[in-house]
Amino acid sequence: MKALLLIAHGSRKASSNQEVADLASKLQQLPSEFSCIGHGFLELTTPKVPDAVHALVEQGATHITLLPYFLAAGMHVSEDLPELLAQAQKAHPEVTFNLLEHLGAAELMPQWILQQALAPKN
Amino acid sequence: MKALLLIAHGSRKASSNQEVADLASKLQQLPSEFSCIGHGFLELTTPKVPDAVHALVEQGATHITLLPYFLAAGMHVSEDLPELLAQAQKAHPEVTFNLLEHLGAAELMPQWILQQALAPKN
Repeated sequence: MKALLLIAHGSRKASSNQEVADLASKLQQLPSEFSCIGHGFLELTTPKVPDAVHALVEQGATHITLLPYFLAAGMHVSEDLPELLAQAQKAHPEVTFNLLEHLGAAELMPQWILQQALAPKN
Repeated sequence: MKALLLIAHGSRKASSNQEVADLASKLQQLPSEFSCIGHGFLELTTPKVPDAVHALVEQGATHITLLPYFLAAGMHVSEDLPELLAQAQKAHPEVTFNLLEHLGAAELMPQWILQQALAPKN
């Protein structure tokens, strides 16, 4: 069973964390190959990434795709996330993990930005 | 003449700032209604937003769309950006400005995330 985990930094501002949780909920409602979609944070709030991974495994995930919801490749993306991946792999050796590039590195980002810039409601 | 200004936070890490500059360059190469596309930062590096706005006006921009390249609506998005918009409007009363929602609030974000999660190179 394939799962997707959205990984965000976490904020002191509850509404920012809620944005991430809401996004994961919206993702869950879209048709995709992911049976289960979760979210986890690095800092400042919960669920932390290891707990979010554990929850997906409990739900039956055998393949977990980790998507860093970051625009820039700072220390969190370049150092913390590979470390979290290694920890997750060690904790769940039977699960296949796939750590994607951070969202800002997406090849489609320029097109997405133009889509947003030209969206009707703007 | 329509212009688009990508607004990012700015980082101490030069490569993160370069990611934003590169993104603006890629955007410039895509066909769109924007004759000119620039980028500006809030903190830590240059060009700062007022200078980036000024450069676009010098290039002939009469309509400038401001796109906050942020995933979360923190203080920068909710307070700094409206203030920067007001300053830009005061400095360039002949120009029409349009401040968009931050990128993370895009209605299409869930679809974009799935596109990234399912991209072939991942």
